[in-house]
Amino acid sequence: VLRVSSPAVYVGPAADREIADAVRAGGGTVVASPADADAIVWRGGPEQADELAQALSPRVRWVQLHSAGIERWLATGLVDDGRVWTSAAGAYSEVVAEHALTLVLAGLRRLHEAARSTSWDASLHGRSLRGATVAVVGAGGIGRALISMLAPLRARAVAVTRSGRRVPGAAESIANDRLAEVWPRADVVVLAAPATAETRHLLDAAALAALPSHAWVVNVARGSLVDTDALVRALAHGSIAGAALDVTEPEPLPDDHPLWREPRALITPHTANPPGAMEAALAERVRENVARFRDGRELLGVVELARGY
Amino acid sequence: VLRVSSPAVYVGPAADREIADAVRAGGGTVVASPADADAIVWRGGPEQADELAQALSPRVRWVQLHSAGIERWLATGLVDDGRVWTSAAGAYSEVVAEHALTLVLAGLRRLHEAARSTSWDASLHGRSLRGATVAVVGAGGIGRALISMLAPLRARAVAVTRSGRRVPGAAESIANDRLAEVWPRADVVVLAAPATAETRHLLDAAALAALPSHAWVVNVARGSLVDTDALVRALAHGSIAGAALDVTEPEPLPDDHPLWREPRALITPHTANPPGAMEAALAERVRENVARFRDGRELLGVVELARGY
Repeated sequence: VLRVSSPAVYVGPAADREIADAVRAGGGTVVASPADADAIVWRGGPEQADELAQALSPRVRWVQLHSAGIERWLATGLVDDGRVWTSAAGAYSEVVAEHALTLVLAGLRRLHEAARSTSWDASLHGRSLRGATVAVVGAGGIGRALISMLAPLRARAVAVTRSGRRVPGAAESIANDRLAEVWPRADVVVLAAPATAETRHLLDAAALAALPSHAWVVNVARGSLVDTDALVRALAHGSIAGAALDVTEPEPLPDDHPLWREPRALITPHTANPPGAMEAALAERVRENVARFRDGRELLGVVELARGY
Repeated sequence: VLRVSSPAVYVGPAADREIADAVRAGGGTVVASPADADAIVWRGGPEQADELAQALSPRVRWVQLHSAGIERWLATGLVDDGRVWTSAAGAYSEVVAEHALTLVLAGLRRLHEAARSTSWDASLHGRSLRGATVAVVGAGGIGRALISMLAPLRARAVAVTRSGRRVPGAAESIANDRLAEVWPRADVVVLAAPATAETRHLLDAAALAALPSHAWVVNVARGSLVDTDALVRALAHGSIAGAALDVTEPEPLPDDHPLWREPRALITPHTANPPGAMEAALAERVRENVARFRDGRELLGVVELARGY
């Protein structure tokens, strides 16, 4: 067990006031040189791996990285050094879930149309999320956070996972091989599953055809989960009410893409985790992990090489 | 105490399937003639008061109206007849609060700009509500429902009421004579107070000047709470980040009003309580009140003539 009662922490590659404050809030002290550090919080990317390698003095026992995914860090070979490494996995889930909720509500309430409107049209009213069935595809950190946000809005969450395991807060939990049963009764579909071979084009022409005509599709996962051409057709024909997408395929969406001219579409440019929120969430994670390091409790986001994340 | 163990309910002026289902779900039976009714659920407005007057057979002991405000019903003189009358007061609060939340999130996340955008601009990222201070002016049904919706988003609600009484779920509760202390630290202001002489132009030029430049203003109450001319100037100068308004002064907002051309504004045409949601909320209220009538419990929304609502 790692435990350093008054941990000395180096923040690199450059000083960062918010992170330094978080280190102190967690009970650590910020040191000016990595040679004096028990731990390093590294704000740089894998392209600065050499710089980090130089900072890894023998005293350093724990390294906190700032990204949630670390595939590119694993490729540097640096992580396999016997120290404890932590990623920010899970730290940004709630911020992304908040964006998903924003897109769900904006779609149902027709804010995309209101934003484009230049006159008072009382017929431009949307629908309430109250009592609506929201299929949340993927129940990792983002999906679970979204389900908790739906509770006071009295929406009915159907959690869809690989295993169909029971997801806390969901009215129903089902396995993704039964998705065909979910589409016809989904008022809203939120895609929050990882991009894998299995989830590629999970929302395809058949799925879109099975959705009710008032349904909204929200994607905060990866563009590959949606068959974009099929979606463009479904929107043009009005076979669903709309799509709010923070991620697309292709991404970025080119200027001449039909989705830019589709009145039923609302696109945000992969901004579910905006820079300011990312900083704040990382600071929160650093504070928590420094406190855990000090108390000898298990750190959050420990990288396990065998799993690859 | 009113108590009818198996209440016969007439729904008028026309049959309504959703309301009839609600009557049955509450333990009542739906009768075809008001002469056989213990209670009436009336979907008509005060302009149909004569029709209702005819339906009020001696057996009828309770009348449920469908509107939340009943000023115009009181003017008909019909309500003062010794029967129990109930309005739908409070039934629509959660639906309106949901719209307020939608506008808050849409503003912070810059969805109004995303909706108007026709190309991928990664710099078009907004902010998270997480950790933000939301001043909720008015803590009636709408304000309290909004505060409960903010909790899982980890925003910090400051409830502002006339008395400053402690509001459940709010991080702070303060009296509206101390609003000047709230403006400088409000990331978002949500207006959810009734329109009275006291709240008229509550958000005026001085209040707008005291808000941080990143602040958003959301109004789901009444247009009169905001000095519209001062708001137009504040938006034009960028002294606040934006305003999302479901109600305006004047209302409807005329076609040539500068707010239609203001990039920092998002207008919805008084649709916080959209027709479909209104139906569902009324049905829920009818079900609940029929069950209470059957059990001899106090009905929700009993009109008290002395108070005028």
